[in-house]
Amino acid sequence: MRPRWGWGYRRNMIAERQIPLIAAPMAGGVSTPELTAAVSAAGAFGFLAAGYLTADALANQIAGVRAITSEPFGVNLFVPGERRDLDLSDYRMRVEAAAARHGAEAGSPSWDDDNYPAKVELVIAERIPVVSFTFGLPDRSIVDRLHEVGAQVVATVTTRQEARAAADAGADLLCVQGMEAGGHRAVFNDDPALPGGGSLFGLLAAIRVVQAEVDLPIIAAGGLVHGADVAAVLSAGAVAAQLGTAFLVCDEAGTQPTQRAEIAAAQRETELTRAFSGRPARGLVNRFLADNGDAPAAYPQLNNLTKPMRGAAGKAGDPELMSLWAGQTYAQARPLPAAELVRRLTEEARQALQQASTRL
Amino acid sequence: MRPRWGWGYRRNMIAERQIPLIAAPMAGGVSTPELTAAVSAAGAFGFLAAGYLTADALANQIAGVRAITSEPFGVNLFVPGERRDLDLSDYRMRVEAAAARHGAEAGSPSWDDDNYPAKVELVIAERIPVVSFTFGLPDRSIVDRLHEVGAQVVATVTTRQEARAAADAGADLLCVQGMEAGGHRAVFNDDPALPGGGSLFGLLAAIRVVQAEVDLPIIAAGGLVHGADVAAVLSAGAVAAQLGTAFLVCDEAGTQPTQRAEIAAAQRETELTRAFSGRPARGLVNRFLADNGDAPAAYPQLNNLTKPMRGAAGKAGDPELMSLWAGQTYAQARPLPAAELVRRLTEEARQALQQASTRL
Repeated sequence: MRPRWGWGYRRNMIAERQIPLIAAPMAGGVSTPELTAAVSAAGAFGFLAAGYLTADALANQIAGVRAITSEPFGVNLFVPGERRDLDLSDYRMRVEAAAARHGAEAGSPSWDDDNYPAKVELVIAERIPVVSFTFGLPDRSIVDRLHEVGAQVVATVTTRQEARAAADAGADLLCVQGMEAGGHRAVFNDDPALPGGGSLFGLLAAIRVVQAEVDLPIIAAGGLVHGADVAAVLSAGAVAAQLGTAFLVCDEAGTQPTQRAEIAAAQRETELTRAFSGRPARGLVNRFLADNGDAPAAYPQLNNLTKPMRGAAGKAGDPELMSLWAGQTYAQARPLPAAELVRRLTEEARQALQQASTRL
Repeated sequence: MRPRWGWGYRRNMIAERQIPLIAAPMAGGVSTPELTAAVSAAGAFGFLAAGYLTADALANQIAGVRAITSEPFGVNLFVPGERRDLDLSDYRMRVEAAAARHGAEAGSPSWDDDNYPAKVELVIAERIPVVSFTFGLPDRSIVDRLHEVGAQVVATVTTRQEARAAADAGADLLCVQGMEAGGHRAVFNDDPALPGGGSLFGLLAAIRVVQAEVDLPIIAAGGLVHGADVAAVLSAGAVAAQLGTAFLVCDEAGTQPTQRAEIAAAQRETELTRAFSGRPARGLVNRFLADNGDAPAAYPQLNNLTKPMRGAAGKAGDPELMSLWAGQTYAQARPLPAAELVRRLTEEARQALQQASTRL
């Protein structure tokens, strides 16, 4: 049976959802099929995070969502960078020393393409209605093939220059990511000279400069955690608000208990770091982050290098050697079932708009 | 005659203005009495910037506003830091070399208190209804005296910790400044280890974390340039939006022609820098900023040191040796009479809220 959200929806899939709310794709096991399905079933829009997955694992997750709901959802892909052979022996020694604490070793600091070509084929074959891209842009041929099957293409951008490039590449929507966002920054090219890999725009400013540059619908992302934040970015001109950290502590999320506990404790600041993956990402400040502020710009090599350490720390419940991705407003995230969170955010957003109207 | 906006308005002066829009205080000659008066006369709220002025000069500016309008306006004061004697001979040599290009010399890298005590007495004596503070908090005794004469006290903050301290010090409102803002960041203590002197929060995230920390009305500042931005921060929960860069190119502003030209050209990125004043501030990237990314945290010493150079560069029309303060969205600033800008921003804000309402 052809899903009822198939061909013909390309221009309006996101903008016509009942609730202009998106659960951000969170790679590494957080965005479970259960979370994605719950968000879409609640009238908002869920995303699966294809990053780090094999095509088979992604296929299983897609099937998992479809087993729960017939509502549409999206898939996010990491665009691989160019293959580079780097000498990372210094950093490897640091990781080895830290990993030894939990009897783990350093991983292989090798480049990989994240199984990108196979996953692109899969999302086309599976007729995923909205496919978003992070860390760069899909080739024009991929954009064309997605369009042929009725999919919308979302490019995640952090600057007006990236927005221009995305528009030129045929993107249908832009996910504009502010510097407040938890997890990886979407910068196309990671400039080693800059802590954030590129210019750091606050979300409202990012929306403003992107809107002035290109005429594409905007999804706003970065630090949004309350319905009033959703109202704010819709007022700023976005067609939808994308929330990551807010859904990170939902019941259905695959977030590890240690990370949940650190978020609930709300005792740490957040910072941008390359320490865990080699690409700038925002997370709670812990020992490994603090000790490695000078980590090289080497993604995905560092991600592969630190993977066993992170896994062992997670199993041991040690927050100091895990990547504790979280946005700047993480302390306001509420542990709720996803549908209940969607309901509350929507109600708060409505109230916020009404309240603002009394001032104008 | 007692001004009609005198005693009794303390709790509500900002929140009850007809238009919830504030022209930010911009020191160094930008916030002229004409600009301040035009904004207040238009139904919004203007601020004089007392920073760098003698008490006599501030008194003249206050009289200048009152000669134009009987509407209320505010005054902003820089809170002086502790006296420190620093060896700045290295930086002095750099400034001398740069200043020589226009036949100028380096100024004296001396500490000063910015005539703060005399200006505090003046705003009390003049019954200024809203007094805002930047770079720190007024002593409790000053807050009490301002309250005694019916004034509202605004503390400018960048983090929840500063917001907590401001509430404890008796502030009536918080001006929450996001990292998008042009000009000086309001950080109470400039941490030399951080490019921004402290944690960098995007404006929406800053509003969220401050609201969770203290129960005071919030004025939102940082990168707001369009009426949709005003609508956004009102939706986020602010009682008013404070715009600096948007008013920087108004006809009535004292902005130098060279800076106006650079803003209109919109060819430069913005960055945070200590190069001109010794405190983190956002401005357009020019040669002096680019050459001095390692400038020491030494305010107001560096400000005094670079003053002759900046003045000479301004007279010579050389944008490379001036401080070109501007927020991240500066390219969208519109050169208009201030009243017309207030009118457009208000209309845009109303439209933005109506548009957002159709999505919820």
